[in-house]
Amino acid sequence: MRILVVGATGTIGKAVVEEMKDRAEIICASRSKADIKVDITSVESIKQMFKEVGEIDALVSAAGGVHYTSLETLTPELNQIAVQSKLLGQINLVLLGLPYIKDNGSITLITGVLMDDPIKTGASAAMANGGVHAFVKAAAIDMPRGIRINSVSPTILEESFEDYGSMFEGFEPVPVKRVALAYKKSILGAHTGKTFYVY
Amino acid sequence: MRILVVGATGTIGKAVVEEMKDRAEIICASRSKADIKVDITSVESIKQMFKEVGEIDALVSAAGGVHYTSLETLTPELNQIAVQSKLLGQINLVLLGLPYIKDNGSITLITGVLMDDPIKTGASAAMANGGVHAFVKAAAIDMPRGIRINSVSPTILEESFEDYGSMFEGFEPVPVKRVALAYKKSILGAHTGKTFYVY
Ligand SMILES: NC(=O)c1ccc[n+]([C@@H]2O[C@H](COP(=O)([O-])OP(=O)(O)OC[C@H]3O[C@@H](n4cnc5c(N)ncnc54)[C@H](OP(=O)(O)O)[C@@H]3O)[C@@H](O)[C@H]2O)c1
Ligand SMILES: NC(=O)c1ccc[n+]([C@@H]2O[C@H](COP(=O)([O-])OP(=O)(O)OC[C@H]3O[C@@H](n4cnc5c(N)ncnc54)[C@H](OP(=O)(O)O)[C@@H]3O)[C@@H](O)[C@H]2O)c1
Repeated sequence: MRILVVGATGTIGKAVVEEMKDRAEIICASRSKADIKVDITSVESIKQMFKEVGEIDALVSAAGGVHYTSLETLTPELNQIAVQSKLLGQINLVLLGLPYIKDNGSITLITGVLMDDPIKTGASAAMANGGVHAFVKAAAIDMPRGIRINSVSPTILEESFEDYGSMFEGFEPVPVKRVALAYKKSILGAHTGKTFYVY
Repeated sequence: MRILVVGATGTIGKAVVEEMKDRAEIICASRSKADIKVDITSVESIKQMFKEVGEIDALVSAAGGVHYTSLETLTPELNQIAVQSKLLGQINLVLLGLPYIKDNGSITLITGVLMDDPIKTGASAAMANGGVHAFVKAAAIDMPRGIRINSVSPTILEESFEDYGSMFEGFEPVPVKRVALAYKKSILGAHTGKTFYVY
């Protein structure tokens, strides 16, 4: 089994690699720090990555940037960060990666709690999460060759609480290990069109 | 009370105008057929419209195009139709319109059933709906000056069933009047961050 993990050097990506490494050959991709370089905001870069990587059984994404700012300071331009990265970056991984995914393979994308339990400054992030969430649900019933697609929606992580916790007052942080298990369920399980909530 | 209806010449827009016309001054905007011309895919065009229209109590959107195609034929480029129109067109109406909306005014956007109950060929539409849905939920708690924001999610309409019904086999169509009432509740009611489902 070959798994391509995009965002493999991040907090979540690293945990997924750790969780899956005894079960599969893992190919690590990220913008700058992994073996395979990819910028998911660029269609050309995604195409190049898949050419380089070739056939895979599972596509995993734990990558996607968003910009946090109050609604009154959110401009169409600042909103583009989440649009190009977390929303379209991940959706383009699916659209361009599909021919490289083997029959009965799987795709797992990342969203996040802000679509369900918002915070001030989180409207752009919520948009990206909600878009990916609904895309996954719809794409699942239109997938060719038995390919499955799911998403994982974590709340704030214990491992990220020092950096972002002040924005998430009152949220119960979860260990990243739980998020990695959700990815494992998506990759090795039978679900499709499902959101694995890690709240 | 002044209400700006974007998409006022469409099936839903016309019904909203009809429902609200005895309660408010209605300003009708659309791409080509209404008094005020606006193309929501253009930030410049939206800015121009708000300059022309001035202060309003309610911003209503019943506009937003999407492209229906199977997942295997959906390209990053075709997906841009829904991104630029239904998703970012509507979100940019909010971001650029906010300074023109009076204290305690309201915003009502359109989504649709495909984010909850998908069809084949509907992944791009679902993405736009899910993105707008989550944006509204998050923006609601970050709105200045008591401004409210909601969305309306209709299923397929009786009035559109002849044109699109074959894509919606087994769906129960609803009369557009019910959708107009949902907009009325959003505009004249007290809710914020809510999705009015018309299923
Ligand atoms: N951490 C949390 O508490 C939390 C909670 C809920 C949801 N999430 C979501 O989960 C995702 C990952 O979060 P994280 O905390 O693991 O992030 P992180 O530690 O900052 O890691 C991000 C990873 O994505 C890669 N990446 C960033 N931009 C990229 C791009 N344009 N193209 C390709 N790779 C890119 C990074 O690569 P390089 O290292 O090479 O730059 C890194 O591998 C984000 O979308 C985040 O919103 C996180
Ligand atoms: N009809 C349904 O059964 C149904 C069900 C669920 C959701 N929806 C959603 O509801 C929304 C409206 O649907 P509808 O059936 O009422 O559509 P419609 O009859 O085709 O009307 C669309 C309206 O939006 C305007 N418009 C289109 N593109 C625009 C742009 N780029 N900038 C500004 N205005 C634009 C049109 O203006 P012009 O006439 O001047 O071109 C028209 O006023 C769509 O997003 C649709 O997905 C519809």
